[in-house]
Amino acid sequence: MLHIGMIGYGYWGPNLLRNFVKVQDCRVVMVADQDATKRERIQCAYPGIETVPDGADVLNNPDIHAVVIATPISTHYGLAKAALKSGKHVLVEKPMTAAVAQAADLVRIAEQKRLTLMVDHTFVYTGAVQKIRELIDSGELGDIYYYDSVRVNLGLFQPDSNVLWDLAPHDFSIMAYLLDKETVDISAVGAAPVSWQGWEQESVVYTTVRFADDTLAHFHVNWLSPVKVRRTLIGGSRKMVIYDHLDPDQQIKIFDKGVDIGTDADRYRMLVQYRAGDILVPKVDQVEALEAVCQDFAHSIQTGAEPRANGQAGLQVVEMLEAAQQSLETHKRLGELWDHNRAQHSSSVSPLMSN
Amino acid sequence: MLHIGMIGYGYWGPNLLRNFVKVQDCRVVMVADQDATKRERIQCAYPGIETVPDGADVLNNPDIHAVVIATPISTHYGLAKAALKSGKHVLVEKPMTAAVAQAADLVRIAEQKRLTLMVDHTFVYTGAVQKIRELIDSGELGDIYYYDSVRVNLGLFQPDSNVLWDLAPHDFSIMAYLLDKETVDISAVGAAPVSWQGWEQESVVYTTVRFADDTLAHFHVNWLSPVKVRRTLIGGSRKMVIYDHLDPDQQIKIFDKGVDIGTDADRYRMLVQYRAGDILVPKVDQVEALEAVCQDFAHSIQTGAEPRANGQAGLQVVEMLEAAQQSLETHKRLGELWDHNRAQHSSSVSPLMSN
Amino acid sequence: MLHIGMIGYGYWGPNLLRNFVKVQDCRVVMVADQDATKRERIQCAYPGIETVPDGADVLNNPDIHAVVIATPISTHYGLAKAALKSGKHVLVEKPMTAAVAQAADLVRIAEQKRLTLMVDHTFVYTGAVQKIRELIDSGELGDIYYYDSVRVNLGLFQPDSNVLWDLAPHDFSIMAYLLDKETVDISAVGAAPVSWQGWEQESVVYTTVRFADDTLAHFHVNWLSPVKVRRTLIGGSRKMVIYDHLDPDQQIKIFDKGVDIGTDADRYRMLVQYRAGDILVPKVDQVEALEAVCQDFAHSIQTGAEPRANGQAGLQVVEMLEAAQQSLETHKRLGELWDHNRAQHSSSVSPLMSN
Amino acid sequence: MLHIGMIGYGYWGPNLLRNFVKVQDCRVVMVADQDATKRERIQCAYPGIETVPDGADVLNNPDIHAVVIATPISTHYGLAKAALKSGKHVLVEKPMTAAVAQAADLVRIAEQKRLTLMVDHTFVYTGAVQKIRELIDSGELGDIYYYDSVRVNLGLFQPDSNVLWDLAPHDFSIMAYLLDKETVDISAVGAAPVSWQGWEQESVVYTTVRFADDTLAHFHVNWLSPVKVRRTLIGGSRKMVIYDHLDPDQQIKIFDKGVDIGTDADRYRMLVQYRAGDILVPKVDQVEALEAVCQDFAHSIQTGAEPRANGQAGLQVVEMLEAAQQSLETHKRLGELWDHNRAQHSSSVSPLMSN
Repeated sequence: MLHIGMIGYGYWGPNLLRNFVKVQDCRVVMVADQDATKRERIQCAYPGIETVPDGADVLNNPDIHAVVIATPISTHYGLAKAALKSGKHVLVEKPMTAAVAQAADLVRIAEQKRLTLMVDHTFVYTGAVQKIRELIDSGELGDIYYYDSVRVNLGLFQPDSNVLWDLAPHDFSIMAYLLDKETVDISAVGAAPVSWQGWEQESVVYTTVRFADDTLAHFHVNWLSPVKVRRTLIGGSRKMVIYDHLDPDQQIKIFDKGVDIGTDADRYRMLVQYRAGDILVPKVDQVEALEAVCQDFAHSIQTGAEPRANGQAGLQVVEMLEAAQQSLETHKRLGELWDHNRAQHSSSVSPLMSN
Repeated sequence: MLHIGMIGYGYWGPNLLRNFVKVQDCRVVMVADQDATKRERIQCAYPGIETVPDGADVLNNPDIHAVVIATPISTHYGLAKAALKSGKHVLVEKPMTAAVAQAADLVRIAEQKRLTLMVDHTFVYTGAVQKIRELIDSGELGDIYYYDSVRVNLGLFQPDSNVLWDLAPHDFSIMAYLLDKETVDISAVGAAPVSWQGWEQESVVYTTVRFADDTLAHFHVNWLSPVKVRRTLIGGSRKMVIYDHLDPDQQIKIFDKGVDIGTDADRYRMLVQYRAGDILVPKVDQVEALEAVCQDFAHSIQTGAEPRANGQAGLQVVEMLEAAQQSLETHKRLGELWDHNRAQHSSSVSPLMSN
Repeated sequence: MLHIGMIGYGYWGPNLLRNFVKVQDCRVVMVADQDATKRERIQCAYPGIETVPDGADVLNNPDIHAVVIATPISTHYGLAKAALKSGKHVLVEKPMTAAVAQAADLVRIAEQKRLTLMVDHTFVYTGAVQKIRELIDSGELGDIYYYDSVRVNLGLFQPDSNVLWDLAPHDFSIMAYLLDKETVDISAVGAAPVSWQGWEQESVVYTTVRFADDTLAHFHVNWLSPVKVRRTLIGGSRKMVIYDHLDPDQQIKIFDKGVDIGTDADRYRMLVQYRAGDILVPKVDQVEALEAVCQDFAHSIQTGAEPRANGQAGLQVVEMLEAAQQSLETHKRLGELWDHNRAQHSSSVSPLMSN
Repeated sequence: MLHIGMIGYGYWGPNLLRNFVKVQDCRVVMVADQDATKRERIQCAYPGIETVPDGADVLNNPDIHAVVIATPISTHYGLAKAALKSGKHVLVEKPMTAAVAQAADLVRIAEQKRLTLMVDHTFVYTGAVQKIRELIDSGELGDIYYYDSVRVNLGLFQPDSNVLWDLAPHDFSIMAYLLDKETVDISAVGAAPVSWQGWEQESVVYTTVRFADDTLAHFHVNWLSPVKVRRTLIGGSRKMVIYDHLDPDQQIKIFDKGVDIGTDADRYRMLVQYRAGDILVPKVDQVEALEAVCQDFAHSIQTGAEPRANGQAGLQVVEMLEAAQQSLETHKRLGELWDHNRAQHSSSVSPLMSN
């Protein structure tokens, strides 16, 4: 019987707990949260689970084999490191840490200690993402021409993070799981039109990933959209896929479409042969992905098998986030420099760029 | 009676002719196209119009007051300049020219000669774009937080142009007409996954415009999408708009949505007050925009009034295209440099970026 | 403090209990269900509630003021009658009873005893239906021309009921709440293409209601549709409404559309003046309707106010169901008669009707 | 070379002419229309075609082999009969005639004279309907459980016809072409909420067809809908189809869905096994259906082959229309009778039906 302790019972914790309860040969024995109301809620719903205010009680509990960390991002590294040091397996909420060096350190410690380190990249456990992975691996899509993802909605603004760190981990983890391409450059631009008392976090960010084969992935994350969109386009040389997470009956559409180029003797346009065949909407397994996350964690601990969203996957997503964040900040500094110069030489503004 | 001559009767020419025929006090007297079959088609449908193989006949015809140019982009400058030099008013297909210097030259000549120079930015004449302009001008949207446009479809690939020059002129002209913001930077990234016998034009391009107030506009144009999308999001501080050109019954949706930020004492998240009110789908005037283009051209010539899509508007779009194109090429050169270096020092690839 | 007892904890019971728990000055003290597993579930989630296997314990409990009945339809009448006879207020699952005479009897007893009799017509408590009621009452829609409702999905087949009694109570209760029209005729046709071991219940039924002003309401309920649809069209002389229950962001659309008839002198068609103005998607209150049901029940008991879905409303829906059912059976008998005759005189089949 | 004459150049005539022009070995030599403006339009667009004001000139022209009739319904019979009597092949606009006896007469004459009699049931020539026919014929859908069609929009009201005769011919011809079932009963109900100076035609009609196997087809046609819908559901025992004519990219969706019934030992509901597999959106041939109509007419004349929409198909649709119309009128008379009785005995209105 695997004994699990949880630290943090805020927004996502209850979902994790509800799913760990379903996992066989696994028992949640202790949950830590500072908030007494939340501890009471746990007591009522799960009378058998001990609740404590302090995460240290979980970390120090010799009866606990594995720790689930669902606290704010900035605390992930410290808690996960302490847990690993105490010889406990660790599952961390996404993103795994707030910095690449932290993530790399956790990976290193887990390897040394031969402990499972896993990150809750929920989406890579969905039936939809599994299906797309199969389509790519089997060659059905052909070469991947581009990957374009839109994840926008109204809110939720967060005090300690921008929209990149909030929403992009989903897309980065999905893309990294799906594509086997070497990244050569990550750049990002963003804006923070809504600010408040010194809080000024980007709420609109566009990130571009360039691969070694000169194809692109592109990500639009946005907290200021009037509608919620969760939509990914994947263009392949043989087929193309649209993945719309919010359309439960048609999450994946596979388009038998393609382009062949020749010349139209008669006209000044090239002749493009469109191959436009059937569209297939495959049945997608609708099991709760988070349950599969919990199962994979338990299974990895019990068998030593590598989990799908292992520490390396967590590290990779943090690398992408950090690279995008650095690009954001570079652009911001360039913008400030430009503002500064313009203030000094306001007459010199190029008419080319005036609008 | 205004006498018009047309040069070029390819893809767009028939539409222009069909609409000029409806304009009062205006007569198309001559159309030039090299293709005899097309000239025959004109003869059959419009027996009163003279057809000639050579555009020079239009330019040299003293009976013609105004010239409509609907030829490939590379020829726009030469033909328009000659027409203006001959004292004729000019309407040019979009984009106005292939380079900023050319566009600026045309604007200068037209001003000197007090002739109408106009560009066929059809979309700024649609009821939908007019409606959005009213919403912005009246302050109903509040401050504009971002402008995000997606214009994607499968094809049409063109021999002498990439997807930027093909599709982005629509979006650039719409945005320039709608927003009264100063542009401080334009950057673009693109990919050309489909190539053919030395032809290697970008078919996927993302363009970002940064304004002086630190807000962004972003444009996704793509020839490799399995579905056709024409969708613009405009986020304002008071209201937000979605403009979907392909949904004739609901082209514009105005969302009475907004965000106010405060602090939730109890939780670690900030408190975001969502203002989510009604959605309004205003009736949009569905007159044919191209007819309004033709009317505006005739009206400008007859009254001296400035047309909506004047030479300055044409210049501005070419400035944006050229800036985006330069950014594309810079990125391409950096990529090649990177490839070169990598080939020499392949061992030095940062593990951070390996995927 | 109002003491409530529940009988039946099957499909809908848990939802009722979860919502009654939220009602102030109201306490669920006892729940009866034959199934021991279900009683255990209640014990775990609500330790303070007594559970019993037999509904009679609820009916005979002098400490209970009001009874909520969520059992199969055939048992509604007996349980509700006994509860009323014991001086208890009653809330019954829809449809209120299996026959008009039963429903009328309950209404009569409740009136005599001055007890609240209410039926769980959940939909009339939704924000969407409230909004439509306001539109009609204020005259914004004008005269109601027609009412057309589609409620189709795949399943759930039920052993003791056809699709009419399963799905139509929703639509009948909504329409009766919205329209103030006198019904003069109800007819229905149906088919039972899927049958099983003597079970042969209609899974496709079309019901038509004719009103005294010669307008119609029409209802399509279907257990054999590949897609789920919950869509009502209401055509008014001034405006028209589409109510799509499954589109949470746009549940109600109000179309400023209408028709005026004149004559087109020139053509053989009449001239129809289309008035096509804006579409408004009003914000709809998204509180849980079932909570409002529970509140209304408690409020009615505590204040004597008439609940929205009172016994009379329950009776009216059962009248419509019974009338539609009778029409179904008449058609079935006519069909069998026809089959019989045809078998005897197969040569006499009219060529007019052969297909 | 087949010589064709047309009578009537109103709403549909120009489309027929435009398509007949494309048919090989076939020439339109004469078009008759009373309206001089329309004749001028033909002259301009098709200088080689003779135009006359009087249809008799077409009927009496010995050089004409076949006549296309695109006039108001009430004139179809007279013109078609005269043409057949003159030995000319005939293509009539839908519906073929205004009465069954007329249609039967035309079929008889055409057979006697061995002439092609065809009706313009355009939809049975679409790629979408062809595809559905293949699905049914191949057994892929299994037994057909129901056929449900919705064809609604705002307008066009017609002076000489109700919505049944205007819109239902499309649905009746499609269904008759797709299903091989024997019709045993047709009934209809309708309402005419919009009337004008003695004009009182139904603008909302529901028609039900009962087949010998006790399955149903149902048709909703409506001139008073705020949105345009063209949607047919076909439920089969093996698969189900949605045909949405207005969704060009997904006109047909094939759902691998079905129902199997068993018993759930534990619960009072039956156990329904849902089979829910992939959805396929087959590529549908998008050739212009009307061109195929014209081709089929010419081909039938030239080869003697039976056209798809032959006189028998035209007769069948008129049979359905007449049966539905009779049912409409029976209901109307019953309603008037009821009104009459109610006026006399207003106190006796059953409370059961009061609303």
